[in-house]
Amino acid sequence: MRKLQFYFDFISPYAYFASKRIEAFCEEHDLELEWKPIPLGIILRHWGNKGPAEIPPKREHTFRDCLRYAAANELPFTMPRQHPFNPITALRCAVEDSEVQAQIIRAIFDAGWRDGRDLGDPQQLQLALELAGLDGAQIVEQTQNPDIKSHLKQHCDEALQHGVFGVPTFVIDGHLFWGNDQFETIAPWLTEGDPFDDETLTRLLHTPSAFNE
Amino acid sequence: MRKLQFYFDFISPYAYFASKRIEAFCEEHDLELEWKPIPLGIILRHWGNKGPAEIPPKREHTFRDCLRYAAANELPFTMPRQHPFNPITALRCAVEDSEVQAQIIRAIFDAGWRDGRDLGDPQQLQLALELAGLDGAQIVEQTQNPDIKSHLKQHCDEALQHGVFGVPTFVIDGHLFWGNDQFETIAPWLTEGDPFDDETLTRLLHTPSAFNE
Repeated sequence: MRKLQFYFDFISPYAYFASKRIEAFCEEHDLELEWKPIPLGIILRHWGNKGPAEIPPKREHTFRDCLRYAAANELPFTMPRQHPFNPITALRCAVEDSEVQAQIIRAIFDAGWRDGRDLGDPQQLQLALELAGLDGAQIVEQTQNPDIKSHLKQHCDEALQHGVFGVPTFVIDGHLFWGNDQFETIAPWLTEGDPFDDETLTRLLHTPSAFNE
Repeated sequence: MRKLQFYFDFISPYAYFASKRIEAFCEEHDLELEWKPIPLGIILRHWGNKGPAEIPPKREHTFRDCLRYAAANELPFTMPRQHPFNPITALRCAVEDSEVQAQIIRAIFDAGWRDGRDLGDPQQLQLALELAGLDGAQIVEQTQNPDIKSHLKQHCDEALQHGVFGVPTFVIDGHLFWGNDQFETIAPWLTEGDPFDDETLTRLLHTPSAFNE
């Protein structure tokens, strides 16, 4: 069974939207889903890039786009109480591959982007997990466990090795697909592959810059 | 008649794709098209942002995405001889609102992204314009005219006032739509407006940051 690695951060509204679709998508296409929480801030800093919310008109454009997407797809949408927020505790809650991992992730995304809770606040995270029928206290306490901390760091290193530069990113057989709009690209790609050969891509990628460096 | 201002730079493959559709789109939706060439580099620097081609894995993702888009939409696609290149002369060729403006713009986009010519080279621009039946020598010579220079600068200032942060961007009644994928968003918006009220948007945009500044 092919694997789909779903790299995401709770800070991203597009990752929230993608999380609503990814499970059914993987089932439909016989893909084994691996949840890969990563801190977007570290990814952006690595590449020297800015997030959309850091550029005022891009931030406004993003939230207009999200409101339109939510309406068109009949998804609830609001902002977490604070944004941006520090997502590290939330990410650590979600890092372990367990029977309840998907439940934890759904509960956290919904707490922020559906219910407007503060996803940077461990108490709010605990409450949201408890409301979803999970052992919130234990899950949040575990975020101080050194193994959990290093597991998250490992995800992040692995993401950078793949060349992940934003979220959500889907990785299949080492191929990166970035953005919530990529479901429509991945579906035909899974059966038909790419409509170009490696040689063409390599030639394009080796186009010289006009600016001597 | 409502106006659609199409902000673009010849350096952007997505602007090339959008240019292929924008004229028919405006005709279909009774919009008066205003071509607005702007230098993307200046726009990005203004917001302290990077272009997709400046981040290696994002550059590769972009060109894979472009090859897929071109195949799906049956458009020819290659890279201009050099990329990135200095687009200022090309933009100045395209800045004047004249009877041949659309022809000039089509000729330059095609010369680069269809035929692989060097869009940073005035001689190549002249040749491409001549091949399209235009007075290439005169058009390229005019790029040294101070009025033409200041006209391009004026476009750029106006774009920044609108909050343009990337290309292609479509501006209608002061509303910004960024990206070649926005045709599908604009079409229903023209008749139905937004599926949210100003109050909701304002509330989202005023979400406080968790990081005290």
